[in-house]
Amino acid sequence: MSNEARLGELGIELPPAPKPMGVYKPVVISGNMAYLSGHGPLGADGKLTTGRLGLDLDVEAGYEAARITGMGMLATLRTELGSLDKVKRLVKLLGLVRCADSFDQQPAVINGCSELFRDVFGEDAGVGARSAVGTNSLPGTIAVEIEAIFEVEA
Amino acid sequence: MSNEARLGELGIELPPAPKPMGVYKPVVISGNMAYLSGHGPLGADGKLTTGRLGLDLDVEAGYEAARITGMGMLATLRTELGSLDKVKRLVKLLGLVRCADSFDQQPAVINGCSELFRDVFGEDAGVGARSAVGTNSLPGTIAVEIEAIFEVEA
Amino acid sequence: MSNEARLGELGIELPPAPKPMGVYKPVVISGNMAYLSGHGPLGADGKLTTGRLGLDLDVEAGYEAARITGMGMLATLRTELGSLDKVKRLVKLLGLVRCADSFDQQPAVINGCSELFRDVFGEDAGVGARSAVGTNSLPGTIAVEIEAIFEVEA
Repeated sequence: MSNEARLGELGIELPPAPKPMGVYKPVVISGNMAYLSGHGPLGADGKLTTGRLGLDLDVEAGYEAARITGMGMLATLRTELGSLDKVKRLVKLLGLVRCADSFDQQPAVINGCSELFRDVFGEDAGVGARSAVGTNSLPGTIAVEIEAIFEVEA
Repeated sequence: MSNEARLGELGIELPPAPKPMGVYKPVVISGNMAYLSGHGPLGADGKLTTGRLGLDLDVEAGYEAARITGMGMLATLRTELGSLDKVKRLVKLLGLVRCADSFDQQPAVINGCSELFRDVFGEDAGVGARSAVGTNSLPGTIAVEIEAIFEVEA
Repeated sequence: MSNEARLGELGIELPPAPKPMGVYKPVVISGNMAYLSGHGPLGADGKLTTGRLGLDLDVEAGYEAARITGMGMLATLRTELGSLDKVKRLVKLLGLVRCADSFDQQPAVINGCSELFRDVFGEDAGVGARSAVGTNSLPGTIAVEIEAIFEVEA
């Protein structure tokens, strides 16, 4: 099944691709690699999920924020490539979780994005290398920021 | 206009390329990709901009620190390649801003580097993917650290 | 001398390759590049080094944690490739150190990993680009997390 067909079967409707908040492009393609900028949890309603894990948000809310972030990343990819069917595999994710100093469940939060990509691109192609780490602060006080590298049709 | 000519027209004189502060190289080239190590705001006077955004430094001072960091990155590239004319495009930046927990304007800070690269390499080739994030601490208490990937002539 | 021979001469025995703690793979190979996930300081005894530099751990303990992390990364590479002799060079490291806000010796900590790689892969091929930065929190409260890109035989 194609990526787009799988997305449809999952009943997922992508939000509009997010606009840059600075001097950068949402994605740059070099050779057969697509480098995605750090994306934030921008909902279909245009609202950002803000706050700190372990303080204002629990793991479930963080997971949902990471999933919403992943939806925006898919929207960016589709806008750039025309179709998600041109994605060959997820190579790597870097997920940052804004959190209290004692918060230690960054992997459970970033899984919200990772499970979305696995469901859309499949058990092999949709699961990449990953780092999930904490930070004390992010732009606009968003709860998560995730960047990625995908292999795409050249 | 070539990158070096544009740099000259902007009246920018690059500082000496910074020396590594540990067991790493300032840049490694693999294929046609140049991976730059995290650089800090080392001024032409040999002084580092230290402190925390939202506490010791305002956005304007952070922007200037990011611009100075970008100058060092250009110096590293020129030293490695012989000439900035061998740079084909900026692929990706990761910018870390040392800041208070409530500071949320990392993009405005990292723009100091991004706008320099845009001015030197042009609106398309000089604008890449980017993540701008916060951190509680950096080496030597520097205010920003930026790493990058550039596409270069193989 | 080959990488495996050098490892043997150094008297280093690698631990078992670590298992993922979420929806990711320890390493993904794309073309001739191996992208390693963020690894933590998992000792041969199965215990993680936890805590914060500048608070619970000194630089020496952090250096050892980074070295242990590097051993796990080598184990992941060998498991994936069959032999470390297929590693051509270290391209890039990103090392995160969990630390107090005032801690500023991240490079001295991450050197624990960088010196291991230098000793195993050699002065040129074992020294890559690098960023060493601080963070307020990491998964499971581990003291360091390190990700890497290696060039490998395609």
